[in-house]
Amino acid sequence: MKPIAVMKSGRRKSVKATVLASLASLVLGSIHSPIARADEGMWLFNAVPKAQLKKNHNFEPTKEWLDHVMLSSVRFNSGGSASFVSSQGLVLTNHHVASDTLYKLSTPEHNYNEDGFLAASQADEIKTPDLELNQLISIEDVTEKVNASVKEGMTSQEASKARQATMGLIEKESLDAPGLRSDVVTLYGGGRYHLYRYKKYTDVRLVWAPEAGSAFFGGDADNFEYPRYCLDVTLFRVYENGKPAKIDHFLKMDPSGAKEQDLVFVSGNPGRTRRIFTHDAIEYQRDLAMPRTMNLLRRKEVLMQQYALAGPEQQRRSRDDLFGIQNSRKAITGMLSGLQDPEFTASKKREETELMSRLGQDPKLAPLTKAWQQIRDAQVKRREYLTKTATLRSQLYGIAEKLTLMAGEDRKASGDRYREFRDSNRESLQQELFSEAPIYEDLERMQLADELARLIDDRGGNDPLVVAALAGKSPKQRAAEIIAGTKLMQVAERKKLAEGGSGAIAESKDPMILLAKAMEPEYRKMHDVMDAIEEQERQAYAKVTEAKFAVGGDSVYPDATFTLRLAYGKVLGYETDGKKIPAWTTLGGAFEHESLHLTKDPWVLPKSWKEAKGKLKSDTPFNFVCTADIIGGNSGSPVVSKEGAMVGIIFDGNIESLTADFYYTEKVSRAVAVHIAGVLESLRTIYNAPHLAEEMGR
Amino acid sequence: MKPIAVMKSGRRKSVKATVLASLASLVLGSIHSPIARADEGMWLFNAVPKAQLKKNHNFEPTKEWLDHVMLSSVRFNSGGSASFVSSQGLVLTNHHVASDTLYKLSTPEHNYNEDGFLAASQADEIKTPDLELNQLISIEDVTEKVNASVKEGMTSQEASKARQATMGLIEKESLDAPGLRSDVVTLYGGGRYHLYRYKKYTDVRLVWAPEAGSAFFGGDADNFEYPRYCLDVTLFRVYENGKPAKIDHFLKMDPSGAKEQDLVFVSGNPGRTRRIFTHDAIEYQRDLAMPRTMNLLRRKEVLMQQYALAGPEQQRRSRDDLFGIQNSRKAITGMLSGLQDPEFTASKKREETELMSRLGQDPKLAPLTKAWQQIRDAQVKRREYLTKTATLRSQLYGIAEKLTLMAGEDRKASGDRYREFRDSNRESLQQELFSEAPIYEDLERMQLADELARLIDDRGGNDPLVVAALAGKSPKQRAAEIIAGTKLMQVAERKKLAEGGSGAIAESKDPMILLAKAMEPEYRKMHDVMDAIEEQERQAYAKVTEAKFAVGGDSVYPDATFTLRLAYGKVLGYETDGKKIPAWTTLGGAFEHESLHLTKDPWVLPKSWKEAKGKLKSDTPFNFVCTADIIGGNSGSPVVSKEGAMVGIIFDGNIESLTADFYYTEKVSRAVAVHIAGVLESLRTIYNAPHLAEEMGR
Repeated sequence: MKPIAVMKSGRRKSVKATVLASLASLVLGSIHSPIARADEGMWLFNAVPKAQLKKNHNFEPTKEWLDHVMLSSVRFNSGGSASFVSSQGLVLTNHHVASDTLYKLSTPEHNYNEDGFLAASQADEIKTPDLELNQLISIEDVTEKVNASVKEGMTSQEASKARQATMGLIEKESLDAPGLRSDVVTLYGGGRYHLYRYKKYTDVRLVWAPEAGSAFFGGDADNFEYPRYCLDVTLFRVYENGKPAKIDHFLKMDPSGAKEQDLVFVSGNPGRTRRIFTHDAIEYQRDLAMPRTMNLLRRKEVLMQQYALAGPEQQRRSRDDLFGIQNSRKAITGMLSGLQDPEFTASKKREETELMSRLGQDPKLAPLTKAWQQIRDAQVKRREYLTKTATLRSQLYGIAEKLTLMAGEDRKASGDRYREFRDSNRESLQQELFSEAPIYEDLERMQLADELARLIDDRGGNDPLVVAALAGKSPKQRAAEIIAGTKLMQVAERKKLAEGGSGAIAESKDPMILLAKAMEPEYRKMHDVMDAIEEQERQAYAKVTEAKFAVGGDSVYPDATFTLRLAYGKVLGYETDGKKIPAWTTLGGAFEHESLHLTKDPWVLPKSWKEAKGKLKSDTPFNFVCTADIIGGNSGSPVVSKEGAMVGIIFDGNIESLTADFYYTEKVSRAVAVHIAGVLESLRTIYNAPHLAEEMGR
Repeated sequence: MKPIAVMKSGRRKSVKATVLASLASLVLGSIHSPIARADEGMWLFNAVPKAQLKKNHNFEPTKEWLDHVMLSSVRFNSGGSASFVSSQGLVLTNHHVASDTLYKLSTPEHNYNEDGFLAASQADEIKTPDLELNQLISIEDVTEKVNASVKEGMTSQEASKARQATMGLIEKESLDAPGLRSDVVTLYGGGRYHLYRYKKYTDVRLVWAPEAGSAFFGGDADNFEYPRYCLDVTLFRVYENGKPAKIDHFLKMDPSGAKEQDLVFVSGNPGRTRRIFTHDAIEYQRDLAMPRTMNLLRRKEVLMQQYALAGPEQQRRSRDDLFGIQNSRKAITGMLSGLQDPEFTASKKREETELMSRLGQDPKLAPLTKAWQQIRDAQVKRREYLTKTATLRSQLYGIAEKLTLMAGEDRKASGDRYREFRDSNRESLQQELFSEAPIYEDLERMQLADELARLIDDRGGNDPLVVAALAGKSPKQRAAEIIAGTKLMQVAERKKLAEGGSGAIAESKDPMILLAKAMEPEYRKMHDVMDAIEEQERQAYAKVTEAKFAVGGDSVYPDATFTLRLAYGKVLGYETDGKKIPAWTTLGGAFEHESLHLTKDPWVLPKSWKEAKGKLKSDTPFNFVCTADIIGGNSGSPVVSKEGAMVGIIFDGNIESLTADFYYTEKVSRAVAVHIAGVLESLRTIYNAPHLAEEMGR
């Protein structure tokens, strides 16, 4: 499972998860520039900046406070954040984090994503096909063990393998109970390795979701904007042994909280930041990697739009993916804008020049300056391989690829395998491979054809991999014949192949498996190439980290790694284009916002809202903004008061915050949350679910 | 003016015209492979394949027949075709050829593009801001004169300049009356040069246009599909000296024509085909040029969609461009699919190998084989410069660029200038530069910002041109400051700069002019580079032509060059995916098609249709298909019977016909036309314009 790279959800198969992950699968931990701005930082739970908090906000969290918030926090392994909100296992996350699941549960008859859902009783809560929720229960520093595996004189590739193997071993040893999950997390660009142990919940049931029209009110147009009026929430419940799980740590509700200027905390799993990136790495992102990603996203956006034109059912099938794609496209547009500002790159350069000069003055530190050259060299290699992908983004191809790779990997010891094929991840992998979520033949055919065409664009029509993949047919013909011939739509067939191992894969004549086998050698080659580049960068960034530590002192936090972090800030309005933007909106404001846009799509509130309008307390807080330092993956994070109670749930960042991948600012950048008062009032008054409002916090 | 590269219209400033023209401005004439398929060919009016017509269709057009059809044909200099349909100057073209003009005439109060228009009387016909219509009146072979200017030992660049200069001179000498236009057209890849003389109409007035909902019924979804139900027509009238022009040659109407299996002719201006392209040139298109164009189109598509989200006025402002972009994107997707079919490239390779081997057997012909290597070399150079554009696609920047270049060019003799700045083109250029058509500040700001960002994508943020263009600002900031500061919105300011010549440009502090001046040196450098590559290809393709002539014999027609051609074929249904598609649809079928799509956008017929439904003769033919060989630029071409009467008007090709850029097939490829009976019936019954139906053909 890869952390997601941009704000919002993370459907496992979406372009967001796959394109971004495979194109830029750097999962660097790192530290930011030494002088952090006031409320900057995504802090480790075992290294919270207490002194800074005390100084700036006159508040010092106790160990109990931190433990309680940590244990109340939940990670959606598919790419989002959440929290426990009742002793009976209720989990609150964003609708857009849930939408992947809502989409999988939907049928042509019941469109839960569009129309919402409410379980009449606990017995009616619907089991989801493949969700895995993680609760972080402990953090242990294993840096020495991991580093001990790297011996002098090893090449980058050997060092990478040795580290990977040790990390696999540590994870395996730690896995002493079936409901647990252990991950060794690379932090500070390889400066630290921490073992994260999670309690894992895989029986997750849908309790309530509002209509998409309310959750995503204002649609793509309002996305990343503020003021907002979105009920972007959904409730799940975790079960154990067929019964609602008993939860010791869950958040109390504080509907009167999050007043202007209040200090608030955000506890969630930011996906990835790249604040340690050197000037050269930034340039590579600006000039090559991100423009390429943008082209891919726009390609998929237009493709899905075309597909949706065919009719309402196609619109339903594509809506979730299309939203994910548009969301990523808008997010990366914002990030790229940040990088394209010559002022930012110039300041990065100045900072570096100054740091270099200070390192140069100290003979012990001077050798560290080589790291920048190593990173520059790595960018040259990245450039060489940028378009040399050897995978295809289609659900069925993804399954075929995993089955094929697994057959090969399983012949090795667990620690020597690619990470996702190790024993410690097998349960998660199987949940994904054997998911009963629907796969649509027409959509798959179109996507596979487009991916084969994309492969030609990337590698040229004469490339041996392309020639092998096409087998003499046009992309469209080839996709049609493969989709018509494959049996991978059936979960039973996937299970048979998985159980049959390398023998079954070797013998399989399934055309999708044959395609994956044809592409496997190149996939493995590219995997090794990228591993070596990342190891080279990892080693270099570890030195950069050391240099920054040495010169800058102690106010350091690692780059985001889709693991639990604590951010904090003030509830605070801002000014843009000369306009004052208030910190809060209200439920009543949603109706005004609708009128202002002539009640035209996407500004149409659902029927349920219109019917409840008279009864609704219209001055109830609905959405609000704060200065906490967040990024994609934080979607669904609880916003917590000093008292440790829930006051809101993060669902977006404004457009000015999108540079957060590379740098934090707090003048106009804001995190956007749904206020918990708005959630409770709408549950009671709009959605006829006062019992859920009652249960929350108890 | 550049011919357009894809099916449909050609708005002067659209991505279609500019992106495609500047990225692939090859205007090669050439010949196709010797053995033409039955109804293949876009024939010169002075070289119609009479024997073949006689043999296949038992029909031999007379000189009178050909002259009449030629003189009845009209070219929209902005990128489409049309015909004279009355003695009083009525001109019939497609709504989508007219839409650029409809858009320019529209205001927030009157949206003629969306809502249609009918002049109550001749006095109410609206003058269009910048249309130029051309009627071809003579063709003269000037090959010897042009070739005589190239001396032995000249470099490619020198040869190109010498040819250009001679062509300029010939055009200038030919220009003996103000209402005329003369163009030397390069045919057969430089095998022939013909002087085309046109009568030029610049007082063009809008008479009638239906609603976009009827003209483009089915929208982007139905575009390039069949069966269709589109009233894609618009009527203009040409004026001379303030009165309707007297037209000697115009088409009679035959509403009972175009029966299944009938022979029909299409007389129009196909924009560009590339059927002579060698295997290497095809590969370059498949792997580099067309994928890049697709990325640009998708970029602009998403950008315009985002802009349109802001509200109905933004939707109106962007609709025309967005349609043009989507149209091109769909067209190029089809073309690229054709190139990505390994069978096509393999057959092209086989053909070439065979031709080479036959050339090799004849010592006199053997040297011609070097041409293929020269073309291969040219593709390597194209690759090197593919992303090195030095222009920005914004209306105001385009004006600044032209003013700046003109100031420099006008210091040279007319024949030495870039073609569009020669005296012979001055009137057309001024019409474009001084157009009163509205330019929207918000749209311009967004497009300029996007183009500056695109320049970074193309050249990298450290490129000197990029650094100069940005002047230390982000693309967004820079675009905002330039649009706020420029006075080029005002036509008077443009005129002042144009009249002031190089002195005025040198002194100008207008920020858009300053930007154009900063980019001018690189623009000129790239212009020279592309000229040299094109000349190298021109010389090589002339040899390829010679080789094909020598080996293959006489059934030859040149590649399309946005000049008048005659195509022919049968009215004929076809079969696809096992379904029989009939040749015709009817007016009544439009209502059924609407019901089938639940009357949802874009399948909503206008109110006028619903009101007229009862009176309408529902079995009137509406749209039909034929096998004639057409391509973009043919939009609006009259479909003419053996008797020389009008039976329809071309408006599209089905998706299977999109390979026509590179090769013709007739199994399922079809040209799509509006039947003239449908036009006349709807004028009478739906649009309350029986007087126009009466005037047509008289």
